[in-house]
Amino acid sequence: MFALDLIIKKRNGGKLSKEEIRYFVNGYTTGQIPDYQASAFLMAVYFNGMDTEETLWLTEAMLHSGDVVDLSCIPGIKVDKHSTGGVGDKTTLVIAPIVASCGVPVAKMSGRGLGHTGGTIDKLESIPGFRTGLSSEEFVKNVKEIGIAVTGQTGNLAPADKKLYALRDATGTVENLSLIAASIMSKKLASGSDVIVLDVKTGSGAFMKTIDEAEKLARLMVDIGKGAGKRTVALITDMDRPLGNKIGNALEVSEAVDILNGRGPADLREVCVELAANMLFAAGKGDIEFCRSLAVESIEKGTAIKKLKEMVERQDGDPGVVDDTSKLPSAPFRAEWKAEEPGYIEKMHAEKLGMASMLLGAGRKHKDDVIDPSAGIELVKKPSDKVEAGETIAVLHTSDENRIPEALGVLKTAIGISPDPVPGKPLILGKVH
Amino acid sequence: MFALDLIIKKRNGGKLSKEEIRYFVNGYTTGQIPDYQASAFLMAVYFNGMDTEETLWLTEAMLHSGDVVDLSCIPGIKVDKHSTGGVGDKTTLVIAPIVASCGVPVAKMSGRGLGHTGGTIDKLESIPGFRTGLSSEEFVKNVKEIGIAVTGQTGNLAPADKKLYALRDATGTVENLSLIAASIMSKKLASGSDVIVLDVKTGSGAFMKTIDEAEKLARLMVDIGKGAGKRTVALITDMDRPLGNKIGNALEVSEAVDILNGRGPADLREVCVELAANMLFAAGKGDIEFCRSLAVESIEKGTAIKKLKEMVERQDGDPGVVDDTSKLPSAPFRAEWKAEEPGYIEKMHAEKLGMASMLLGAGRKHKDDVIDPSAGIELVKKPSDKVEAGETIAVLHTSDENRIPEALGVLKTAIGISPDPVPGKPLILGKVH
Repeated sequence: MFALDLIIKKRNGGKLSKEEIRYFVNGYTTGQIPDYQASAFLMAVYFNGMDTEETLWLTEAMLHSGDVVDLSCIPGIKVDKHSTGGVGDKTTLVIAPIVASCGVPVAKMSGRGLGHTGGTIDKLESIPGFRTGLSSEEFVKNVKEIGIAVTGQTGNLAPADKKLYALRDATGTVENLSLIAASIMSKKLASGSDVIVLDVKTGSGAFMKTIDEAEKLARLMVDIGKGAGKRTVALITDMDRPLGNKIGNALEVSEAVDILNGRGPADLREVCVELAANMLFAAGKGDIEFCRSLAVESIEKGTAIKKLKEMVERQDGDPGVVDDTSKLPSAPFRAEWKAEEPGYIEKMHAEKLGMASMLLGAGRKHKDDVIDPSAGIELVKKPSDKVEAGETIAVLHTSDENRIPEALGVLKTAIGISPDPVPGKPLILGKVH
Repeated sequence: MFALDLIIKKRNGGKLSKEEIRYFVNGYTTGQIPDYQASAFLMAVYFNGMDTEETLWLTEAMLHSGDVVDLSCIPGIKVDKHSTGGVGDKTTLVIAPIVASCGVPVAKMSGRGLGHTGGTIDKLESIPGFRTGLSSEEFVKNVKEIGIAVTGQTGNLAPADKKLYALRDATGTVENLSLIAASIMSKKLASGSDVIVLDVKTGSGAFMKTIDEAEKLARLMVDIGKGAGKRTVALITDMDRPLGNKIGNALEVSEAVDILNGRGPADLREVCVELAANMLFAAGKGDIEFCRSLAVESIEKGTAIKKLKEMVERQDGDPGVVDDTSKLPSAPFRAEWKAEEPGYIEKMHAEKLGMASMLLGAGRKHKDDVIDPSAGIELVKKPSDKVEAGETIAVLHTSDENRIPEALGVLKTAIGISPDPVPGKPLILGKVH
C-alpha cells in the first residue's frame, strides 16, 4: 500500500477501505507518511468527503493510535459529555456534579481552550489549589470512590488526532464534518465511558453557524458513537448569544456554583438540566421526564453542590470557594458599559463577546499564552431584556487596565439595541439519537 | 500575506491575485512555505482550478524563479518546440535540422525522459561522443554560428517547477490542466525563444487521453504563451499508436536520419513536416503552404540532413553516424514476434508498447536508472497493415536477454489483429493558435 494511491483514490471520489484508512493514520502518526502527503490527503477529503463508514474507520484508527482508558473496574454505566464549544459554556461544571450526585459515575477528560476563554480545565484551575493533572490511577480511584473526576487529557490519548489537528490547522483543512467528527469522537471513545452525550452548539458563537450543519455533525458523531458500541446522543443548542451571564474562567465557576445553589440565569439552568437529564436517561435511570426531575431535585436538595464540593476537595482545590465564590480570583479593574438610549437588547454576537473576553485576558490566542483567571465579561442584560438609558449592560473584568479600551470597542460592535421589543428564542434546538 | 490564507481562498473557489500567486511560488521555492502547505494548496487547485489569467501569473512566477535565457544576441526569430510526449516521438531530431536549414535559428533545451523511452537528450546521447551538457555560452554560440543547438536544461531553469513537480508527483496533484500548462510553459518561456510551437499528443500513449482534454490544454498553453508576449501555436496530434516504426533511443535516432534522407515511415514524416511548417510560418517565412514546401525541400535537397550532421559534429558526436546509422549502438539480442493468424493490425496500444520498450531497457522507471541506448522495439507492421500468418510484426532489441519474455508478454497485449480490413486514422487532429 502506498500513501500516494490513497490520496489519488480519495481525490477521485473513491471510498477507502478500513485497512487503507488504518494504514494512513498509523503511517502518519509514526512519521512514515510525510506531512506533505497527509495534507494533500486531507484536502482531498475536504473536497470529496468521507461517508459514515469511512468516518467511523478513521475515528477508530485515531482512537487506537494511543492509550485507551479502561474504566471497567468502576461499577455502573459511566457517562461522558462533550460540547463543541461556545462562549460562556460552563455546562460541564454544573452537569458533572448533577449527574454524579444522581448516582451515575462521571469520568471526564477535558481539554484546555484555544480561543475566547479557557476550556473546562482552565476554568477549574481558577479554583485555588485545584489539580487537573490527575494520574490515571487517581482518576479511576476518584470516580470509583466519589463518582466524579475531571482531569486534563493524558499525553498519549489519540496522538493521531493531535498531529492531524495541527496539520489541518496549518493547511486549511479544519472545516470538514468527517474530520471534525473523527477528531472529537476519537478522544471521547479513547476516554473509556459507556455513554456519550454531545452538546452541538450552533449560531454566531459556535463552529457550526447553521442548524443544518450542526444537525449533520450531530448525526455523524452519534452514528460513530453507536458504530463503536457506545450509547450516544446529541443535543443541538443555541450559541447565537452567550450561555449564561458570565464569560471568563473564575466568573464562569462562580456562575456554575450559583446554578447549583438554585440561583443563576435561567438559560444556563435550562441547558444544563436538559443535558444532565439526557445523560441520566442514557445511563438507564428512567424515562426522560423522570430524569429531568432527578436533575432538578439534585439542585433543589443541594446534593449536586455537595458533590461539586467533594470533587474540588478531592482534587486539592479550596472547597470554601463553593460556599463563598468571593474566594475566587477577582479582577482589580472593572469597567461598566452603559446604554446610551433606552430600548431592548436585540443581538448579542457571541463570537465577538468571546473576542472581547480574550482581549481582557480570559483566553489564549497562542498555545503558550497565560490566562488571567479573573478576566472576563459579566452581562447584566441579555437579549430581549429591556434597558433604560444609563443602565449598565455589561461589566468588563481584567487584571490589566490597558486591555479595556480595545475590548470595549469590540463589545460595542457585539451588542445592538432595538427600540421595539425583541422576542425570545428557544435554547434547545434539536436532539439526535 | 500568509500561505494559509491563500490555501483557504483557493479552497473556497476564489481567484488569486498576481501578487498572491507570486508570493506562493517564491515562498515555496525559497523554502519559506513548507511542503505540507504547498501540497494542500496544489490539491485545492486540483479541485477548484485556475482561470487563464491565474495560470499565466503562475507560469510567470515560475519562469522568473530562476535564470531566463537571453537569446537576443542571436539575429532572427528564434523558434522552440515542445511535445507533451509520446511513444516513438523523435520529432525534435527531425524538425530542428529542417527548421534550422531553412534559416530559422533553433535554440532547444530538452529534458531527460522518465518513462517509456528517454527524452530527446537521452536519444541524442546514443550518438557516440555527443555532448548534451553545453554551457550557456556554447549554446548561444552554436545557435549563432550554425543556427542550431540542442542541450539539456541548465540547473537553474525554472527551479520552482522542478520543486513543485516533484511535490505534485508525490501528492496526486499532477493531473490538473493549469499546473501542467504552467509547468511546461514556464520552462519554454525561460528558454528564451520568440516562437513556441507545441505538439499536444492525444490517445492511449499520451498524457491527454481524449481530444477534448488535449484541446483544452493546447488552448491554455497558447493563451499563456501569447500572454507572455510570444508567438505560440499548438498542433494536436495522434498518439493512439506509436509515431513511426521505432521505439528506443538509438533506434529513434536511426529513424530520424532515415526521414531526413527521404526514407522512413510516412506517419512520422507527415507530423514532422507539419510541425516544421508551423514553426517556419510562425517565424514569418511565408504562408503555411509555402512553409510546408520549404520543409519538404529541405529533406529532398539534403540540406536538413547536412544541418543535423553539422550539429552532431559541433556537439562532439560522431558525424559518421548520420551517413551510416549502423555506427549507432546495436543490441546483441533480438527477438521477433510473428503473427499466429492472418489479418489486419487493428489496435496498437502506444502506452503498452512504451512499457514493453522500458522493460527491454530503453526507459527509466526511477530517476537514477541507466538507459540501454540500443534497447527498444522495431514495428515491422503498423495499424491497418495486412499481415500473413508467420509474418513478423515486431522485433525486440535489448542488451539483456532475460528482459525479453516479460516485454514480449506486454507486447502481445498491446497489439490486436482483426480478420477485417482496418481503416486508417488521421494524424493531425487539430490546431490551436
